[in-house]
Amino acid sequence: MLETKETSAITKINDGSIVTPKGFSADGVHAGLRYNKNDLGVIFSEVPANCAAVYTQSHFQAAPLKVTQESIGKEGLLQAIIVNSANANACTGEQGVKDAYEMRERCASLFEIQPHYVAVASTGVIGEFLKMDKIRTGIEQLQPKATSDSANAFQNAILTTDLVMKTSCYEVEIDGKKVVIGGAAKGSGMIHPNMATMLSFVTTDANIDSASLQSLLSEVTDKTYNQITVDGDTSTNDMVLVMANGQAGNEQLNETHPQWNDFKAAFKEVSEELAKQIAKDGEGATKLIEVEVTGAKTKQEANVVAKKIVGSSLVKTAVYGADANWGRIICAVGYSEASVQPEKIDIYLEDICLFTANSPQAFSEEIATEYLKQDSVKIKVNLGVGEETGKAWGCDLTYDYVKINASYRT
Amino acid sequence: MLETKETSAITKINDGSIVTPKGFSADGVHAGLRYNKNDLGVIFSEVPANCAAVYTQSHFQAAPLKVTQESIGKEGLLQAIIVNSANANACTGEQGVKDAYEMRERCASLFEIQPHYVAVASTGVIGEFLKMDKIRTGIEQLQPKATSDSANAFQNAILTTDLVMKTSCYEVEIDGKKVVIGGAAKGSGMIHPNMATMLSFVTTDANIDSASLQSLLSEVTDKTYNQITVDGDTSTNDMVLVMANGQAGNEQLNETHPQWNDFKAAFKEVSEELAKQIAKDGEGATKLIEVEVTGAKTKQEANVVAKKIVGSSLVKTAVYGADANWGRIICAVGYSEASVQPEKIDIYLEDICLFTANSPQAFSEEIATEYLKQDSVKIKVNLGVGEETGKAWGCDLTYDYVKINASYRT
Repeated sequence: MLETKETSAITKINDGSIVTPKGFSADGVHAGLRYNKNDLGVIFSEVPANCAAVYTQSHFQAAPLKVTQESIGKEGLLQAIIVNSANANACTGEQGVKDAYEMRERCASLFEIQPHYVAVASTGVIGEFLKMDKIRTGIEQLQPKATSDSANAFQNAILTTDLVMKTSCYEVEIDGKKVVIGGAAKGSGMIHPNMATMLSFVTTDANIDSASLQSLLSEVTDKTYNQITVDGDTSTNDMVLVMANGQAGNEQLNETHPQWNDFKAAFKEVSEELAKQIAKDGEGATKLIEVEVTGAKTKQEANVVAKKIVGSSLVKTAVYGADANWGRIICAVGYSEASVQPEKIDIYLEDICLFTANSPQAFSEEIATEYLKQDSVKIKVNLGVGEETGKAWGCDLTYDYVKINASYRT
Repeated sequence: MLETKETSAITKINDGSIVTPKGFSADGVHAGLRYNKNDLGVIFSEVPANCAAVYTQSHFQAAPLKVTQESIGKEGLLQAIIVNSANANACTGEQGVKDAYEMRERCASLFEIQPHYVAVASTGVIGEFLKMDKIRTGIEQLQPKATSDSANAFQNAILTTDLVMKTSCYEVEIDGKKVVIGGAAKGSGMIHPNMATMLSFVTTDANIDSASLQSLLSEVTDKTYNQITVDGDTSTNDMVLVMANGQAGNEQLNETHPQWNDFKAAFKEVSEELAKQIAKDGEGATKLIEVEVTGAKTKQEANVVAKKIVGSSLVKTAVYGADANWGRIICAVGYSEASVQPEKIDIYLEDICLFTANSPQAFSEEIATEYLKQDSVKIKVNLGVGEETGKAWGCDLTYDYVKINASYRT
């Protein structure tokens, strides 16, 4: 089913996925790393695809990230991504690197492609070695297809403590050709330890050069994936991978292409939808919190303030308690490093004004509380010192967050 | 009762307080800002005292901080500190500044001293005006004395959601004279909104010039008050004030004085004890967590890593759940900005080795869990890349933290 977005030339494909773009297939199987759900998945492109990637900022990048970087470093092309859940293959030393290489080799053999056309990703427990016998058997069972069922099998295979699959798909016409972008992500937490590991895989049949794709991904990541926070912790395994296989047949995209902005809009929409789904599925969360900052001096400051607010434990608990607590919001603004002046700040809950002109406003607590009881709430802050805007997403901090994280091993 | 610290020339005075140093008195009364506890207090020095101060990093400094800075800016001398709880006088615009000035004036009148010899501090709800009628009547009731009861009355008056009073007192001999340093602090949270506001007041009869005192306070603050975290939020009202009235009769202290290091050690001990008491009394906390980082390249990196670990929600919940989860600790190290190499890191719980040489170690889960059930736990991390050390303190993240902060207004 197609649903037209009114704001631009892009169209959301509600039942689309990573296999909706031409030339992509996927699969997911139960290799036995976990008891009762898929734990090994693959995305495959008929032809080598241009690619782009962003990795965790942690000093301790897990073994699969090192192997993936090596793959991409060779030719800038990928044809397959092999992913396991249940075990992050992190803090596993030389054996871990060896295992990640073996995953790459075996996946390459399966599809009879070059090893450096394969990327490897893992998520799950850290400090334990992969059960390679199960991985080996699992890889042999993979039979990627371009069906919804296959896409679901993959999407399910990459989940850990996630409660729901995360997916998004958009279409945009470029040079009269239909170009599709699909994405699948996981994020929420790991089994043990919980680090809110985020993995996101985006496929597109667009014809776009690698440099433009990388620059687009980096720019969009700063506005989407990097603007979500569950608990402020960063994983050793976070990674976003994009494959663009050119099967749509458009003229090669780059910043000078007349429809670059349309492609960019669709790409950003997919990324933002995946990011929001991850934030909403944060451990123990009952609500998605969106913070929109306007009137900032710079884009960066707008993003910083938005993220400070959405990351504040006090704001997160207040939202959980449906408490329209502007004081905690202004505090979070106050300790960000942005240029702010208290007397210029307006704070709204959607359309309810809580604070303006340096003064708390009279508002109906009842209406505000009702608003905050929804499963998605929006905090709007106008800094009043410039023209730039930024957004961030997070979730409330609940009893269940403490429960999930305090009691896993006991 | 005196208890000798073995490590240096300094002596802890277990029943000492802010009125133990010569020439200081204090009082606290129930002015009526809160229903049933003292809410207005004063510390008074017989003579104008050299002073030093550090203030919140928030952009939104509350009115009393502005007035205090003006007082200190004039001559660098203070003779009285007037403090109220229940209302932070923050985000209160011009009226708030007027009210803070009036508090200063009335306190100065009471003691017949110059207004700029008075510092003002407030903690409590933000965005509401002070009930000045109650403040006025309260100030008239203040009768500072140099007794334990008076010190307790003050210590109680500055508390908000704190469960316990925080106090520390040390003695050190300088030039054959007994020099005493006493401190009183509050920190944990505010009634609404909760921002873990920290106030700390230190008195000493040492003869020390203002510049040396300020430089000492700044240095020690970075190692103590700035190394505690309850929930990462920073208040508009945080402040540490020190008064040194010279009544001990020692030669004026500065960095060239032969016993400077003894005085510094005592001053640091008082600050660290107050900071630890604040961390331990964090909202909903059941445990004090101390993180000691060794083997860092720089002191700053040691402090940053220690604070990252103690501030990690995942580490805090693991400690609450008595879970010896080294993975979360190494993750927090990984996302700090310090120079670290995973293969060089050792992680201990007190003396239990959890991780070394890039490998998880076998340890008794039972012993580790028993250890973590204590009311004070120590995480030790050796980064193995240098010689510098740092410490940080915090508390566990519990159901009660969520409860206190989600349900205050409902």
